[in-house]
Amino acid sequence: MRQMNISFIGAGRVGDILSRALYSKGYKINIIVSTTETNGRKLAETVNAEWSASYEFSSIDDLIIVAVSDRSLQKVLSEINCSPDTMVVHTAGSFGLEVFENSSISRKGVFYPLQTFSKDRKIGFDGLPFLLEASGEEGYSLMEEIVKKLGSVSYRIDTESRKLYHLAAVFACNFTNYMLTSGKRITDLYHLPFDLLKPLVEETVNKAFEMGPENSQTGPGIRNDINTLNKHRELLSFDPELEKLYNMVTGSIFGYYNNDK
Amino acid sequence: MRQMNISFIGAGRVGDILSRALYSKGYKINIIVSTTETNGRKLAETVNAEWSASYEFSSIDDLIIVAVSDRSLQKVLSEINCSPDTMVVHTAGSFGLEVFENSSISRKGVFYPLQTFSKDRKIGFDGLPFLLEASGEEGYSLMEEIVKKLGSVSYRIDTESRKLYHLAAVFACNFTNYMLTSGKRITDLYHLPFDLLKPLVEETVNKAFEMGPENSQTGPGIRNDINTLNKHRELLSFDPELEKLYNMVTGSIFGYYNNDK
Repeated sequence: MRQMNISFIGAGRVGDILSRALYSKGYKINIIVSTTETNGRKLAETVNAEWSASYEFSSIDDLIIVAVSDRSLQKVLSEINCSPDTMVVHTAGSFGLEVFENSSISRKGVFYPLQTFSKDRKIGFDGLPFLLEASGEEGYSLMEEIVKKLGSVSYRIDTESRKLYHLAAVFACNFTNYMLTSGKRITDLYHLPFDLLKPLVEETVNKAFEMGPENSQTGPGIRNDINTLNKHRELLSFDPELEKLYNMVTGSIFGYYNNDK
Repeated sequence: MRQMNISFIGAGRVGDILSRALYSKGYKINIIVSTTETNGRKLAETVNAEWSASYEFSSIDDLIIVAVSDRSLQKVLSEINCSPDTMVVHTAGSFGLEVFENSSISRKGVFYPLQTFSKDRKIGFDGLPFLLEASGEEGYSLMEEIVKKLGSVSYRIDTESRKLYHLAAVFACNFTNYMLTSGKRITDLYHLPFDLLKPLVEETVNKAFEMGPENSQTGPGIRNDINTLNKHRELLSFDPELEKLYNMVTGSIFGYYNNDK
């Protein structure tokens, strides 16, 4: 089978990790397009590609992966000029194929890894879900093949359902991280090591995915254990904002388990 | 070394898991005290112990572990009648040695595993932190020895600091679980598999403990990305309570990262 040629638009967190992963799996990376020259050149060098600031593609790419911010996605897509044979996909969870509407691209798709990316952080692609959508079967197969090569798993998910995953991910990832941050503010303030909480958090997550999180809720909020809640409020009086968050989430837990469920 | 004799008061989640773990490590379990006969007898049988409903201990125990609800702890301790040589410890994170004040117990301690327990769920004791406190050095050493035998790790943490860990654990465990529950409500409503979010949540937790959660926050809340926030609010309109939670946590994230930090 002929080697596949892939170019990237965007050298941010997603472009960085994805291009390196594909390069390491033997794909030829043609061009890294980035408006920030330093980032773009650095990444291009790493994956043995050319850097460019232009959306004009004279190279023959099988695939262009557009990994730019949600804010600039539509504009970037409308400026791409590439061969009609090139498939162009974006990596945004909250957009579908409709975002291509002002573009001249004919083969289009969504290539959304359901993961949180941070710069300079390696992530495992093994078993990672990619939520895919394409304007044609051939394009879908092309993405499927790449996902398989990464060791990841393809799911054919339509625009509406992918948006729902994106939203569910905000609760499960962004909000979860913020709860950890809030816990750490407490241990930090008293110079206690936050790391002691790691086994607890890991068990919380394992339990949630094995039993269903709705079946594994514990703590004073669900029982409305007033004594403990009041003790906690007192300890939190050093920070009214944190106390407010505590009260809001506790109230929401109690409401869900006792009235609204 | 002589085999240590241990009795338990409480056959709930903590008593169940802890007595089984100690039994499997070769400790002799004397008595399981439980006011619920069925639970008590069942657990006693499993760990080759006697069941009793009484707080009078004629047996010679080295240690009595009191694993009852926070609500009944003080009362239970005041009713225990045991040898003055027996060490009595409780497993509650939000109480210290002061909760023994109406009791006749002379050797006392706190034996608090920083973990979330569910009935019929095995948890790993390897590397688990036990936050210990004791009225004397000999008692502390006794607990330390048991923790080591379990493969867990001892930390000498005073009452105030342990209460803070208990509070931090509410954020990191109870609230985290509730964020997962909220994410699952979204996927459930649309009959989408929640499990796809597992790699994302695991990476969120790993990243938080490696980089510090305050350094790994992502998502529309921290950037106040109005377009995405409004799209999410629209998707959440099926459930005003969930939308309220989304708005509250988003507002709190934005406030923390943009004003209050």
